[in-house]
Amino acid sequence: VTETRKALDLYNITFLPQGEKIAVAGKQTLKDAILETGIAFDFPCGGTGTCGKCRVRIIDKPLPPTPQEKKLLGKKEISQGVRLACATEIRADLTVQLEPPKRNTHRILHTSAQTGFHLEPLLAKKYVEVPTPSLADPKAYWNRLKDALGKKDRNFINLKVSLPILRDLPDLMRLAEYKLTAITKGEEIIGIEKFDTTCTLLGAAFDIGTTTVVGYLMDLYRGKELAVASSLNPQVNFGADVISRIAAAGKSAKDLKSLQRAIVNHVDLLVGELVKKAGVKREDVYALTVAGNTCMHHLFLGLDPKHLGVAPYVPVTNDLVISEARDFNININPAGRVFAFPNIAGYVGGDTVAVVLATGMDKSRAIKLALDIGTNGEIVLGNKERLIACSAAAGPAFEGAHISSGMRGAEGAIDSVSFGENLVYTVIGETKPQGLCGSGLLDVAAGLIELGIINKRGKLLSPEEVSNPQAAPFLGNIVKLAGTNAFLLAPETITAHGRPVMVTQADIASLQLAKSAIATAVQALIETYGIEIDDIREVLIAGAFGNYMAPHSACVVGLIPRELEQRIKMVGNAAGTGAKAALLSRRELERTKYISSRVEYVELASYEGFSNMFIQALRFHG
Amino acid sequence: VTETRKALDLYNITFLPQGEKIAVAGKQTLKDAILETGIAFDFPCGGTGTCGKCRVRIIDKPLPPTPQEKKLLGKKEISQGVRLACATEIRADLTVQLEPPKRNTHRILHTSAQTGFHLEPLLAKKYVEVPTPSLADPKAYWNRLKDALGKKDRNFINLKVSLPILRDLPDLMRLAEYKLTAITKGEEIIGIEKFDTTCTLLGAAFDIGTTTVVGYLMDLYRGKELAVASSLNPQVNFGADVISRIAAAGKSAKDLKSLQRAIVNHVDLLVGELVKKAGVKREDVYALTVAGNTCMHHLFLGLDPKHLGVAPYVPVTNDLVISEARDFNININPAGRVFAFPNIAGYVGGDTVAVVLATGMDKSRAIKLALDIGTNGEIVLGNKERLIACSAAAGPAFEGAHISSGMRGAEGAIDSVSFGENLVYTVIGETKPQGLCGSGLLDVAAGLIELGIINKRGKLLSPEEVSNPQAAPFLGNIVKLAGTNAFLLAPETITAHGRPVMVTQADIASLQLAKSAIATAVQALIETYGIEIDDIREVLIAGAFGNYMAPHSACVVGLIPRELEQRIKMVGNAAGTGAKAALLSRRELERTKYISSRVEYVELASYEGFSNMFIQALRFHG
Repeated sequence: VTETRKALDLYNITFLPQGEKIAVAGKQTLKDAILETGIAFDFPCGGTGTCGKCRVRIIDKPLPPTPQEKKLLGKKEISQGVRLACATEIRADLTVQLEPPKRNTHRILHTSAQTGFHLEPLLAKKYVEVPTPSLADPKAYWNRLKDALGKKDRNFINLKVSLPILRDLPDLMRLAEYKLTAITKGEEIIGIEKFDTTCTLLGAAFDIGTTTVVGYLMDLYRGKELAVASSLNPQVNFGADVISRIAAAGKSAKDLKSLQRAIVNHVDLLVGELVKKAGVKREDVYALTVAGNTCMHHLFLGLDPKHLGVAPYVPVTNDLVISEARDFNININPAGRVFAFPNIAGYVGGDTVAVVLATGMDKSRAIKLALDIGTNGEIVLGNKERLIACSAAAGPAFEGAHISSGMRGAEGAIDSVSFGENLVYTVIGETKPQGLCGSGLLDVAAGLIELGIINKRGKLLSPEEVSNPQAAPFLGNIVKLAGTNAFLLAPETITAHGRPVMVTQADIASLQLAKSAIATAVQALIETYGIEIDDIREVLIAGAFGNYMAPHSACVVGLIPRELEQRIKMVGNAAGTGAKAALLSRRELERTKYISSRVEYVELASYEGFSNMFIQALRFHG
Repeated sequence: VTETRKALDLYNITFLPQGEKIAVAGKQTLKDAILETGIAFDFPCGGTGTCGKCRVRIIDKPLPPTPQEKKLLGKKEISQGVRLACATEIRADLTVQLEPPKRNTHRILHTSAQTGFHLEPLLAKKYVEVPTPSLADPKAYWNRLKDALGKKDRNFINLKVSLPILRDLPDLMRLAEYKLTAITKGEEIIGIEKFDTTCTLLGAAFDIGTTTVVGYLMDLYRGKELAVASSLNPQVNFGADVISRIAAAGKSAKDLKSLQRAIVNHVDLLVGELVKKAGVKREDVYALTVAGNTCMHHLFLGLDPKHLGVAPYVPVTNDLVISEARDFNININPAGRVFAFPNIAGYVGGDTVAVVLATGMDKSRAIKLALDIGTNGEIVLGNKERLIACSAAAGPAFEGAHISSGMRGAEGAIDSVSFGENLVYTVIGETKPQGLCGSGLLDVAAGLIELGIINKRGKLLSPEEVSNPQAAPFLGNIVKLAGTNAFLLAPETITAHGRPVMVTQADIASLQLAKSAIATAVQALIETYGIEIDDIREVLIAGAFGNYMAPHSACVVGLIPRELEQRIKMVGNAAGTGAKAALLSRRELERTKYISSRVEYVELASYEGFSNMFIQALRFHG
């Protein structure tokens, strides 16, 4: 048997907890095998072996660790059989524990502030009783339905219909004894159902982020939210950020299709979860709205994002795209439509349009600043007179990536830290700490700046260099690490994995780059608009990181101008709120087009004086 | 070998001149085998064994004739191996000569009168040079194209586009160095081509009749006709008339598909012939218009015509249907669209809309009567104030079917007859006569009525009963046939097949039914409109039979009121002309919708006093 196997070079891998089995050729890595199964699994650095976060546990025969694994994993972990999926070459049959990120402990933002609008969905239902044909009235089936609808509503006089609907129409009308419910999209009839089904008309709004996907099931008649579902974007398998997704999609047309299928199937899965939670049927769902950044938008629609990856970062389209759910194999009502939010520019997408929509910036007299901070920060400044936007390449620091002890805002992450008499921190899920997420890192940096442990240039000082007496209780936490200082938050004895959680000098440098990117962008928008900082009435913070960050820390670090600290307002998942609004109101949907064409895009790469501004903004001012 | 074959029950049939070979199970007929090959072949009675016209010649081993064949075929034919395809059971390998109707000798009407209109096709091309993207101008590909087009033409500001076009757009724009030609359909962009292709924009107009299909290739820029092609409708394989097609399509969804495929593939074939004749490419053709009766319309679009077969004869739709040529597998430009003419009622279809369009009846102050006479006669009466239409079930007499010596207007048909000093007739193709087509039959009947050989009740008198001295030279042509009289036109010695060509008493009865149907319909329309016969300024005769018939004969027989003889005008293939007009002008296309909704339909089946009117109209008045 062994001989045969060697000749064929095939090994059986079983993944737990899924129980998924796969036979793979040797010399591939566990990462290749995971990708082949289609199991959603997180490769934050895209499988390049640098982040050390694609941990798996080999159950039956742990192989000796590679030098890379020795470097990136704790001794305790190695002894427990933990290895890196991207570094483990397959040389034997294996049973592998994947422990995928637990969905419900993953902190994903659902709630948000909401502005008022008229409840009047573009998709509507109309019940009608059509006169039966006779020799005295032999009008065509379609025309008698259209005329009956036209009598009820003048808007339906010029209704359009498609050939597939016409094909089924006569039998349907007769079976339903000429009692029908028409589903309309403006002046177009997109579906016909037997008898009166006007009691249900549901839709789902999706906020598709690079990292997370959130879906809301909505009752379009009552404007009520029926269920929420969320999870990681399964495209994380192809890389953590937009750039690696563009690279993955650019390999071939097949790869683009794979990335599209990953997100589309996932949306379909979430729809299933939503209807199950709400106790309704998939057929009751008639519309989906989808808001995402421009790259997520392109990948969802199967548009090649390659030109987003190189200057001048040109999207394929910025227009609202309306498609049939059927064409995406998304299993909702056969009449179902998908509305993909319009974009503003290559790095300011439909999610930003949704934020403007939800916050009503385009209708406000007061000038507001909206920030959605992630790997790319999208920033909009203005009011109903003028709106300008730009994108800031903040890097992944705020999402806990490329930070020594960094992790996403999931169970085990230290998400807030305060320096009073003692060091106090909170851990998501109230378990043993495993790492530090963006908001925690921001708190640590802000605290150490205020204590004088980090100086203006961002240097983490040695205990003897610190002069502030208030810093005394924390000097013991400063440790030496390969010639520089680090600040210890949790020693290895109390962490979940037996490695310390700390903030290194390199981490502070990453944070400096990230905050400078945002601060420079804000400054550029203010200059372009030609106003003073004080003219900004409100700072609207949207998105996951922003909503968990402490406003005071953000101002101390210099992410947001200190003068505006009291005007900061958390608006939650405003992108999701905008997606819901467009689903519930045809006027709001129409407004997305207006916003997309109205918002001026400011390209920072060609902004005059950008480099100098950026270097200036690296400093901390406390 | 014989044993094996019997067990399998399969025989090899070769059809000439195609050389098509097929293996079929025994106990089927040659008709089944022909249908299976898909070869276009004419079964006028739908293969019921009554018309005797599906003649084939068995080359190698002629089987003994069946009693049916003995009855329906001449002795000479039988000795030459001629048999009926529908009556010949397959019991051996056979080589069969099909001699399909020769296309170019088949008399199909191409030309017509034409009214003026503005040359402005709905499908248009626009060349544009799009600014290349830069960091200062990073607008999305689609939006920069749309904006460039909008600058050229204000109508293009809200252009719509489909996802498949968006998918290819960036690469196409770059390859074309941002020099593009957009193909538009109103406010929608349906195709984009590299560089300037505005020099060619072609379309094809199709008149799809139950029996014949005519296609015209048109230059949409210059309004010029480039080529004409025509042939039998291949659906004749499924039966000669609308009723047998409805029955054939109603058997199963698969059969409906077969009928659709037959006509759609045939249109595709004719497109190929048209572009070959004109020396252009299929890709240059962007639009097809299709005008046909309601049943042909339904079968072309794959709509089930079953409800057209039973009262109250309700069509699926009367609206203009616009589809993508791609969806029909019709190979023209990928952007190509198909416009199926709207209908008026179950038996007054898009071809009648096209006739009204071509003759401008809907714009005329003078009241006109239009007749398109075939198996179903469609009749329209009115002017711009009011238009009414009805359908008359004339039966197949005018098309030469169910007439003892009847045949279509093809080679060998006697198509005109005059009674001067001698009997004079003309034969299509100037060959030996084989039969009599509709216009010939009408002339014979009119002549015999005027000579007093046929009396008012339609009786073909015996020589001794005829009193008119002018009839003397023709009394010798009156022969006895199974107890009634018949009029001999050509004795068997001079015909192509060795059987006499004659008009029987039964043929006269068929003609009476046919002319009464039309005359009653005309009378009903006149009554409904509330006018006198003399108020009708013009009688417009459209379609094949009408254009070859002698107006005087039509009036003598009573097909058309005698008072209107001098007002009769032949308008040729007006349906084809209408189909061309809609292709060349968006206003004419728009007018088809207006006409379809404007024309009132009069249902003769429920018309008061119809039976009495019909019985009255059976008489001849000379």
